[in-house]
Amino acid sequence: MDRAKRFLSGFALAVVAVLAAAAPVGAKGDPTGAATIGTDPNAAVNFAWVLITAFLVFFMQPGFALLGAGLIRAKNTVNYLTKSFMDFCMGALGWWVAGFALMFGGAGAIVGASAVQGAGDGNPLIGLSGFFLTGDAYDVTTATFWLFQMVFAATAATIVAGIVAERMKINAYLAYSFLVTALIYPIYGHWMWGAGWLWTLPFGAGARDFAGSGVVHAVGGFVGLAGAIMVGPRLGRFVEGKSPTKFPGHSIPLVVAGTFILFFGWFGFNPGSTLAATDLRISVIAVNTFLAGTTGAVAALYWSLARTGKADIVLACNGSLAGLVGITAPCAYVAPWAAVVIGAIAPLVMIATNNLVELLKIDDAVGAVGVHAGGGLWGLLAIGIFADGTYGGVSGLVVGETGQIIAQLINMGVVTAWSLGTGLLVFAAIKYSPIGLRASRQEELSGLDVPEHGTDAYPAEVAGTAR
Amino acid sequence: MDRAKRFLSGFALAVVAVLAAAAPVGAKGDPTGAATIGTDPNAAVNFAWVLITAFLVFFMQPGFALLGAGLIRAKNTVNYLTKSFMDFCMGALGWWVAGFALMFGGAGAIVGASAVQGAGDGNPLIGLSGFFLTGDAYDVTTATFWLFQMVFAATAATIVAGIVAERMKINAYLAYSFLVTALIYPIYGHWMWGAGWLWTLPFGAGARDFAGSGVVHAVGGFVGLAGAIMVGPRLGRFVEGKSPTKFPGHSIPLVVAGTFILFFGWFGFNPGSTLAATDLRISVIAVNTFLAGTTGAVAALYWSLARTGKADIVLACNGSLAGLVGITAPCAYVAPWAAVVIGAIAPLVMIATNNLVELLKIDDAVGAVGVHAGGGLWGLLAIGIFADGTYGGVSGLVVGETGQIIAQLINMGVVTAWSLGTGLLVFAAIKYSPIGLRASRQEELSGLDVPEHGTDAYPAEVAGTAR
Amino acid sequence: MDRAKRFLSGFALAVVAVLAAAAPVGAKGDPTGAATIGTDPNAAVNFAWVLITAFLVFFMQPGFALLGAGLIRAKNTVNYLTKSFMDFCMGALGWWVAGFALMFGGAGAIVGASAVQGAGDGNPLIGLSGFFLTGDAYDVTTATFWLFQMVFAATAATIVAGIVAERMKINAYLAYSFLVTALIYPIYGHWMWGAGWLWTLPFGAGARDFAGSGVVHAVGGFVGLAGAIMVGPRLGRFVEGKSPTKFPGHSIPLVVAGTFILFFGWFGFNPGSTLAATDLRISVIAVNTFLAGTTGAVAALYWSLARTGKADIVLACNGSLAGLVGITAPCAYVAPWAAVVIGAIAPLVMIATNNLVELLKIDDAVGAVGVHAGGGLWGLLAIGIFADGTYGGVSGLVVGETGQIIAQLINMGVVTAWSLGTGLLVFAAIKYSPIGLRASRQEELSGLDVPEHGTDAYPAEVAGTAR
Repeated sequence: MDRAKRFLSGFALAVVAVLAAAAPVGAKGDPTGAATIGTDPNAAVNFAWVLITAFLVFFMQPGFALLGAGLIRAKNTVNYLTKSFMDFCMGALGWWVAGFALMFGGAGAIVGASAVQGAGDGNPLIGLSGFFLTGDAYDVTTATFWLFQMVFAATAATIVAGIVAERMKINAYLAYSFLVTALIYPIYGHWMWGAGWLWTLPFGAGARDFAGSGVVHAVGGFVGLAGAIMVGPRLGRFVEGKSPTKFPGHSIPLVVAGTFILFFGWFGFNPGSTLAATDLRISVIAVNTFLAGTTGAVAALYWSLARTGKADIVLACNGSLAGLVGITAPCAYVAPWAAVVIGAIAPLVMIATNNLVELLKIDDAVGAVGVHAGGGLWGLLAIGIFADGTYGGVSGLVVGETGQIIAQLINMGVVTAWSLGTGLLVFAAIKYSPIGLRASRQEELSGLDVPEHGTDAYPAEVAGTAR
Repeated sequence: MDRAKRFLSGFALAVVAVLAAAAPVGAKGDPTGAATIGTDPNAAVNFAWVLITAFLVFFMQPGFALLGAGLIRAKNTVNYLTKSFMDFCMGALGWWVAGFALMFGGAGAIVGASAVQGAGDGNPLIGLSGFFLTGDAYDVTTATFWLFQMVFAATAATIVAGIVAERMKINAYLAYSFLVTALIYPIYGHWMWGAGWLWTLPFGAGARDFAGSGVVHAVGGFVGLAGAIMVGPRLGRFVEGKSPTKFPGHSIPLVVAGTFILFFGWFGFNPGSTLAATDLRISVIAVNTFLAGTTGAVAALYWSLARTGKADIVLACNGSLAGLVGITAPCAYVAPWAAVVIGAIAPLVMIATNNLVELLKIDDAVGAVGVHAGGGLWGLLAIGIFADGTYGGVSGLVVGETGQIIAQLINMGVVTAWSLGTGLLVFAAIKYSPIGLRASRQEELSGLDVPEHGTDAYPAEVAGTAR
Repeated sequence: MDRAKRFLSGFALAVVAVLAAAAPVGAKGDPTGAATIGTDPNAAVNFAWVLITAFLVFFMQPGFALLGAGLIRAKNTVNYLTKSFMDFCMGALGWWVAGFALMFGGAGAIVGASAVQGAGDGNPLIGLSGFFLTGDAYDVTTATFWLFQMVFAATAATIVAGIVAERMKINAYLAYSFLVTALIYPIYGHWMWGAGWLWTLPFGAGARDFAGSGVVHAVGGFVGLAGAIMVGPRLGRFVEGKSPTKFPGHSIPLVVAGTFILFFGWFGFNPGSTLAATDLRISVIAVNTFLAGTTGAVAALYWSLARTGKADIVLACNGSLAGLVGITAPCAYVAPWAAVVIGAIAPLVMIATNNLVELLKIDDAVGAVGVHAGGGLWGLLAIGIFADGTYGGVSGLVVGETGQIIAQLINMGVVTAWSLGTGLLVFAAIKYSPIGLRASRQEELSGLDVPEHGTDAYPAEVAGTAR
C-alpha cells in the first residue's frame, strides 16, 4: 500500500499543478465561438473540415498499433501495443504543457495572426506562447488548430515504437514519448510551420513541406533510428559471419488491417492540412494522396515479384506507406501525374534506405526508417522537382525553377541532423538515467510481455483456459 | 421445414405490420429538404456535421465488439460478438417503433420545436409522437436527429453485452436489446434531453448532461449491473473462502483495437452533440474529449505501475474510456485544464466502483460497470464542480455557484434508481419467461459458442482443417 | 539480379509513359479552386461532404479484407489479403488510365456539364474524355468526382476476391483487377451514371440506380460468379454422391469486424451519392441505409434460429450486407418504412441465390454472389416497387406507377448479361494466356500462402519462434 500512497500523493501534486493552469478567460479569446461565427461566415464549414480530418489523423494511431503488432513476434506484442497506445497519451500532456507553445507561438505569419489567439509570441527560432491552452488561448480557433497539430505530433511520436520494438523498456519509452512531443518535434516544427527560419529561407518560396513528410515522418523516422542505435539490435539479429536474421512477424491480418487504417487516416492528414475546406485544392490533394499510395504498393509488389517470384504483401504494404509519406510534403504542389511518379519511386527509396540501415547493423524491427525517414526525405526533395507552380507559389524543376530544390536540400539536411542529433541525446539521457533503456537479456528472450506487463497478448490460449 | 414455414408466416406478418407504417407524406414534413435548405443557409453544413458525427458514433459499435471480445475467453467469443452485433440491429427496430417517439416527442424546447417535424406531442414525463418516422416525421431534419439519437441509444444498449458476457443466453439478450431501446433508455432520456422534468429542475440551469455521461453511459452501466445481478456470476468466479477468480481475456490486440476505435468514435459522440457545426464550441469539446481520454489512460497506467510494478494495458484502456465517459457530460461546459483533472480522476472512480462490485460478489465480466456507471456519475457530478459559465449558462463550484451541483446530485440519484430498477424488472421478466436468462451449466463449461451458435470463434483451427 | 534489372527497365519505361500524361494546365480547368469557390458559395461544404464520404467508401476496402479473410481458411489468408489490398491499387491505375474517361466522358447531363471539366466528350454508349486527369481535367471539381467514383469502382473490383478465394493465382487476379476497373465496370457504368442509354430508357424516369446496387454490387457479384465458373470449385467442395462440403472460415472476430466496417463505410456510399450536402435528402438516405442494414441482420438471424435453432452470426452479417446492398439503389427514392421491408426481404433473396449457385455446383467461397448479385438485383427491382415519387421524379408501384419497374427489369437483364458475359471473357482470356488462372493442385492443398507469397498468415506461430 506504500506504493499506492506514493501514487496518490504524486497524483494529488499533479492535480494541484494543473490547477495552476486554470486562468480566467482571456480578453482576446473566444471560448464559445459566438464572435468568430459572427465575423466569418465560412467558420462552420472550415471548423468541421479541420476537426473531422483531425479525427481521421487520430485514427492513424490504431493503424500504427496494428501494423507494428503484426510485424513483430507475439511475445512482445503487449509491450508494443502499450507503447503505441500510451505514446499519444503521454504526448498529449507534452503537447499541452509545452509542445504547442514552442511550435506555434508567433506562427501567425502562416496560420493567420489574428485567428490563433493566445499564441502570438515567438521568434524565428522558437515559439513562446500558447502553454496549457489557457488565458487568451482558451479560444475556439486556437482549440481547433491545437487539436489538428496535436494528432500530427502524436503520429511522429508513434513511428518510433515499431523501430525500437522487442527490446526497449516501457518506462524508457514513456519518458521518450513525453520529451519528443514537448521538445524535439515542436522546435524543428517551429522552424517550418511556425514561420521559423526554414520557412523563410531565401530560395524558391522558402523551404516547404505541405503536410509533413519532413516535420512528421522524417522526424519520427530519424528519432527512431537514433533510438535503434542507442538501444542496440535485438539478440540474434546480427551474428558474426552470418547474414542478418529476419524475425518474422506474427500476424499478416494485423499488418494489412493496420496499413488500410493508415491509408484511410492519410485522407485526413494531407487534405486536412489546408486548414480550410474553402481551399478547394483539397480534392487534388486527396487524389494525389490516393494515387501515390496505390502506385507505391504496385511498384513494391512487382519489385518483390521480380526479385523473388513471390508477391510479398508486407513489402507492398510498406511500399504503399512509403508512397503516402513521399506525397505528404508535395501533395498540394503537384499534378496527379507527378503523384504517380512520386509514389512509384518512393518504395525504391524505402528499400535502399532499409538495406543501408541493415548494412550498418542497426536493427529497425519493422522497416519504418525506410518508410518514414527515407520516404520523408524523398517527399521533401520531390517538391523541388515536381511542384508545378499552380499552388502556393511553389515551383520546381519541371517548370524550370531551380531555387526551390535548394531550399528543400537545406531542409533535408536540417531535419536529418536535428532529429538524429536530439534523438541520440534524449535516448542517451534515458539510457544513463536510473530508468535505463533496454530490457534484460532474460526478459528479451522470454518476451517483454509477461515481465513488463504481467500478461501475454493471447493470455487465455497460453494458460489453456480458453476452452 | 415446419420451422421455415413458421418463420415465413411470422415474417409475412411482420411485413404486413410494417406496411401499417406506410402513410402519406405529412403536410408539415419536408422529405426532400428543398424547403429547409431554402430557409436555412446553414442547413447543409449542419446536416453534414450531425450525420458524419453520427457515423462516427455508429462506429463505436465495433469498438465495443472488439474490446469485449478481447476481454473474454475464446470459448464465448461468438456469443458475445453476436450479441454485440445484434443489439444495435434489434435496437434499431425498438427505436423506430417506439423509442424515438417516447424520448423526443415534445422535445422542441431543446432541439427547436419548429425543426423536428412530426415529434411535437409530449409532456415532461414522456414523449408521444414520432413513431415509425412516418407522416409529418418523414422529414429531413427529423431524420437527421433520429439517426444521431439512434446511435446513442445503441451505445447504451451494447454496454450491457460485456457485463453479462459468458453466461447470458442469446435469446434473452435479443429480447433485452429491443426493450432497452424501446422503453428504458428513452423514458429516462426524455426526462433530460426531451425537455422533461429533470431538464427543468429549479437548481442551477436545471440538470445538465451534454453528451450523455448519464443518459447513455450510466444507463448502460446500471442496466448491465442489473443484468449481472439477475443472471448471477460465472461458474468459479466467486468460490467460498478464496479470493475472486479473474478470468483472463483471450486477445490484447482486440482490446487495444477496440479502445482506439471507441476513442475515435467519441470525437463524434461529444462534439456532434452540439447538433450544429455553426456552434463553434465543437472545437473546445473535441479538445476536452481528447485531453480527458489521454489523462485517463496515463493516470490508470501509472496507478498500475505504482501498485504492481507492471504497466497494465487493460487498465490503461479502461482508464482512458473512464476519462472519456467522465468528460462526456461536462465536455461543453468546462475549460481544457478542467478536462485534464476530470480525466485524471475518472480511472480512480472506475477502480473504486469495480472493487465495490466485486466485493458485492457481482460479476462484471469486463469491468464496464466501473467505466460507464462509475465514470458516468462522475461526469454528471463534474458539471456541478467545473462548469465555468462560458457556455449554455451552466456554472459550477469553480465559479462560485452552488445550485448546479444540487441539480446534478438529484439527477445522479434518478439515473441510478431508474436504470437499476427497470433493468432488474426487465431481466427478471425475461428470466421467469419461457425464454430464460442463463445458459445451462453444461453450455457454460464448454463455452456458449458451439451450443448457441454452432461454431467456434476460430473454427478452422479447432477443426484442424486450417492447414 | 537479372530479374531486378528487368524490373528496373520495366519501371523506367512505366515512368516515361507516365510522363506522357504530363500536360500543361488546361484552359478550362481550375486546379486550385479559386475560380470555383468564387462562383459557388456552397462549393466548400459540398467538396467536404463528397470527399469525406469518399474516404468512408475507401474504408470499405478493409471491411471486405477482414470479412473475406475471416470466412476462409487460414492457409489461404495471405493470398486473399494480398488480392484484397492490391485490387484497389491496380484498380487505381486502371481508373486513372482509362476507366474514369470511359465511364464519365460526356456525363454532363447527370453530374453538371459545366462542372466536371475535361470530361465533356462521350456518347450514350461510351465516354471518351478525362484520361489521366490531365489537361482540362486537372481541375478541383473533376478531381473530387474522380475520387468519389474511383472508390466505387474499387468496391466492385474487390467483391470478386472473396468469391474466387482459395484457388485463383495472385497474378491472374492482378490482371483481372486492372481490367475490371479499366473496362468492364466503366462501360456498363457509363450506360447508367454516364447519362448513357439505360439512364434515358423511355420507361418511368429511365433506369435508376441511386448509389449502385447494380452498377457496383451486381457487377461485382456477377463478374465474381464468372470468375468462379472459369476457375472451378475448390478441391473437395463438390464430391459426387455427397452433399456439398462447407469449408469453415478461420476467424469469426474478423468476420464481424469486417461487417461493421462495411456498414460504417456504407454511410459514405449511399448518402455521399447525392454528390452534395446541400441536397438535404442525405439524412433520409442515411436513415434508410441504417434501417435496411439492421433489418437485414434481424431477418437473417431469426431465419437461422427458425431453421436450425442456432443464432448464425455469419448469416446475420451477410444478411445485414444484403440489406445494405438492397437499399443502395432505392435509398433516395423510398420512405423509411419501405427501407425496413426492402432490408427484411434482402436476406431471403441472398439465401435463395446462394442455394441456387450451390445447386449449379459453382463454388462461391464466401457467399458474396447472393449478397451482391442477388441483393443488387433486388435493389434495382425495389425502386420499381417502392419509389414514392418524392425525390428525383421516380415513382414505383406503391404510388400506382408501372413504367419505372419496366425500366428496372430491363436494367436487371442488362447488368446480368454484361457482367457475366464480359466476366467470362476476361477470366477466359487470362486462363488461356501464359498467366493462367488456377493454382496447382499441390499449392491448393498446402494453401496458397507459402507458395505464392512466401509466408503464412500467422508466421511466427507456425515457425514456433513466437515464444
